Formats: sequence, C-alpha cells, structure tokens
Amino acid sequence: MSDRLVEFVKGHGTQNDFVVLLDPTSELDLTPARVRALCDRRRGMGADGVLRVVPTRLAGEVHAQHDVAEWFMDYRNADGSTAEMCGNGARVFSKVLLDRGLVAGESFTLATRGGPRDVRVVGDEFAVDMGAPLVREDAAHVDVALGGLHFAAVPVWFPNPHAVAFVDSLPALGAVLAPPTVSQAEVFPEGANFEFAVVHGENHVEFRVHERGAGETASCGTGACAVAWAYRQLADAAGVVSGPVTVDVPGGQLIATPLSEGRWELTGPVVIVAEGTIDSNWWDVSYE
Amino acid sequence: MSDRLVEFVKGHGTQNDFVVLLDPTSELDLTPARVRALCDRRRGMGADGVLRVVPTRLAGEVHAQHDVAEWFMDYRNADGSTAEMCGNGARVFSKVLLDRGLVAGESFTLATRGGPRDVRVVGDEFAVDMGAPLVREDAAHVDVALGGLHFAAVPVWFPNPHAVAFVDSLPALGAVLAPPTVSQAEVFPEGANFEFAVVHGENHVEFRVHERGAGETASCGTGACAVAWAYRQLADAAGVVSGPVTVDVPGGQLIATPLSEGRWELTGPVVIVAEGTIDSNWWDVSYE
Repeated sequence: MSDRLVEFVKGHGTQNDFVVLLDPTSELDLTPARVRALCDRRRGMGADGVLRVVPTRLAGEVHAQHDVAEWFMDYRNADGSTAEMCGNGARVFSKVLLDRGLVAGESFTLATRGGPRDVRVVGDEFAVDMGAPLVREDAAHVDVALGGLHFAAVPVWFPNPHAVAFVDSLPALGAVLAPPTVSQAEVFPEGANFEFAVVHGENHVEFRVHERGAGETASCGTGACAVAWAYRQLADAAGVVSGPVTVDVPGGQLIATPLSEGRWELTGPVVIVAEGTIDSNWWDVSYE
Repeated sequence: MSDRLVEFVKGHGTQNDFVVLLDPTSELDLTPARVRALCDRRRGMGADGVLRVVPTRLAGEVHAQHDVAEWFMDYRNADGSTAEMCGNGARVFSKVLLDRGLVAGESFTLATRGGPRDVRVVGDEFAVDMGAPLVREDAAHVDVALGGLHFAAVPVWFPNPHAVAFVDSLPALGAVLAPPTVSQAEVFPEGANFEFAVVHGENHVEFRVHERGAGETASCGTGACAVAWAYRQLADAAGVVSGPVTVDVPGGQLIATPLSEGRWELTGPVVIVAEGTIDSNWWDVSYE
C-alpha cells in the first residue's frame, strides 16, 4: 500500500458516525487539521469523529495500558480535539477489531485516554463499560433555559459534563434544539451536553441531546448513561426495581445497564457502511 | 466480490460531493430509498448525489447513445429522483472512468439522460460540454425576493431552471441564503435554482446558489453556466471581449467557456476522497 493510502472503515452506532483509520504501525500523523478535513461532510469522508486503531504498546500516552489492552482507541472529535472516550464510537471500533481478527472471543479490553474499558460481544451488538459517573455535592441541580422554556436539570459527569432535564414532551422542544444555557455557568466551566428526557414507563426513557460544539445530534453514548443514571435517581424514589434501562434516541435504541460499584454498561448496535482506502493527498489541502 | 458488496468511489467537484457506484454488469437495483440511504450523511456514505457507472449498451433508457458513448452516467439526486445531467458530477464520473482505465485519451463522450456529453481532459481538470441554454421570449425577467430584499433576475434553462440575479454584495445576503421566492411563479412550475452573482472584473464573476430541494450549496455546475451566460448578456452590452469566464463559487473555482452554437463548456477540478466497497446490507434497513 502506498504511503498516501490509508485503510479506513466508515460506520455508525445509532447514527453517531465515525471514520475508523487502521494504523497498525502507528505512522499516521493525525493533525487536528487533517481530522477536520476527514470529518468535513462535503470535502472529506464526513463523520462525527475519527477513531484511530493503533497498538497500545506503540501509543506513548496510554502505553501503561498495554498489559490489559492490545489496541488503543485514539478518538478525535470532528473539530480535531482529542477526547477520553466515546460510547457509540467504542462499539464501532470494537466491531472493526473483531471483523478484522484483531481481537477474538466474547470479551476484550480497549485502551482509551480515560483508562481501559471492557467490551462484551452480545449477539450482533456490543456492550461497553462506561465507568461510574461523578457528581458534585455542591451542585445537585442547575437551571437550564431552552428558548423561552426553563427546566431544572441534574449535573453529572461521565466523565464529560452533562445536564439532564426531564420534560413532558420532546416534540414540544422544537424541530431543532436551540443552544441551551445554564444559569449557574460556574458548574460547567468548559460547557456541557444537555439532555432533555421523557419517561415512557418503568426503565424506559427517551431523550434528545444538544452536544458541546456539535448542536443537536442523533445520539450520545455518555448522554444515554447520564439520562439512565438520572432516571435511576427518580426510580429509586418511586420504588422501581433496578435493571437495564432502555434508552431511545433519535438515531435508534440503546440499553444502559447498572453494574457493580456505580458503573454503567452501554449496549447498542453497530452498522458498517463501507471500507477501503482514503487517498490522503487531499488531507493537507487547506480550505480553512 | 460478494453480491452484497458494491465497489464505490467518493469524490467532489468544488465541494459538490458524490458517491460513484461501479456497476459493470448493470445488476444494481438502485431504488430511490437506497439512493436516499446512500446519500444520508450519518447513516450512509453522505453525498449530494449518486453516479452509477453502467455500460450504455446495458442501459435501456439511453441505449441509443451506445454508438458514441461507452458509459452511461446514471445520475440520481440525494432525494432519490433522477436528473438529466450534473456538471460537477460529470467531472467526478469522468475521473473515475479515466483512473480505472474504462476510457483512454484526451477526450471521450458520456451518455446521459440529457443526451451525449463530450468531456476533455485538461491537465488535472476536466471540461464538460454543458450544452446550450434555453430562454423564454415571454419571460425575460422575473422578480426574486430573498428575505426582505428584491432583485430583478434572468430566467434561463440549462436545461434545468435557473434565475440569475446580479447583486452588489454576496455577504450582505446573510450567513445562509433563505429560500428565495419568485413573483411570477408560472415561469417556474417545477421550481428553480436561484443564483446571486457579483461581477469582480472582466470575465470574472462569483455567485452563491440556492438549489431546488437542497437549499444553499457550495457549488452548482449548471448554475455556473447560467451565471456565465447571464454575465455574457451584460458584457456584450458593455463591449467586453468574449472568452472563458472565471466563476468563483463557495466550494472553489470553475471556468465557463462559450463554444460554438451557443453551447458552454465547464472546466473544473476533481478530488477523489476514498474508494472501496459498500456493504449493501444496510441499504434496505428503513429509518424513514
């Protein structure tokens, strides 16, 4: 393969879509400008993010995880920034590893910037350990404004920041979610993802999400866990038996399951759309 | 190759982007729903349109062109509808033919629903014969409203409908073009593409376009010819010598050249982004 051709897979999890780049020798110099070019939906492949497949032992920043995880999920947001973890992306990444024989068996572990993450193969789907959420004792609630509406929301970190509000109706929030604001800005110094959720029944919720830097999206993996966790707080008070929470998102359906020690596991589908080679000659042509 | 894998190339011409499908045996059943799924920017490949590469002799509807054109450009809009011709798409299509050795030499002819179209290879770029425009004697001008602004526009068919208005400033039209309306709706019973153009100098124009069913786009090939033609009417009156017209669009630069018999040729770049196989198993999963 020419050094200008990069092997890729394009896929999505509940319509959160990714370009997976195969980099078995850790030779790709994935600059923020190149990530932005790849994710551009007209002049690139188009994606919500890039997932580089690289051996953990060759990845300096997570090298310590190589004893437990052979492959590092090097995740980049569409704006070129790095991120610790991406729940929907981890499923797409896991399917690529499995399809290509880079992992085997019913379970394996991924190296991520947020630490090792266990993955289970569940039929056609993948279940990813999303870790335990963090809460702040001094910020149990915040006030979220959306257009002219105001909601009480629960702040929770997974570990990225979320504010979850339960509402009466999702369509009533408008055709497209306007950028929400929070009155206590000091709670989220780096911004937040805003989830607006409705309860459809015992352990069954649905939400819409406005993501930092992306606007309304069709799905958000950590958001699904944040909503399931927030639902659990209500359900505990109402005496609902704990168990897997079915979480509907605009892009499909996820299952958030409480594990031990406050951790949550997120299960959902993966669709592989295409694979082949990207001609990286256009990566460095600047349109910016 | 499995019957579920389809060879594809993704590319763009001045940021008008296309999925090219290789169908050498004319076996693909490209239903409107499948085209919409392919062009969906999150659950598909994402594109402004699909270009199927099929031998003209196997394409019933354009079979008569097989004496002059070996390959039929079966063009579909992102909404699944068919179209006669697409100037930016024809360049991407031509590059795929040339790269794969399906055509050879400095010039060749494509079969299209609008009739055979000559293509010339010009260095790295491609020049496509776009045909001659049609005008209506009884509709020399229409009034176009854009937000609170009103412009006199020239209707011209290439052969799809366009209304070209020359304006003082493109940024003044707003961050995103609102849907324009035309006061004489009977001139465009099936709607129109609206071009707003400025003249930068002799034989140098720039425009923004609002396309039927797509909103504002980064480029429009027939629109570039429509603007160059409309510019030529002004230039004739001003005594400007005829010649190639440089046409800037948000997605790059095109050259529209007047040929004999009123025909125009459109020259521009092509970028091949990626190639490989599409797993058509997801095509028929309905999200609609």
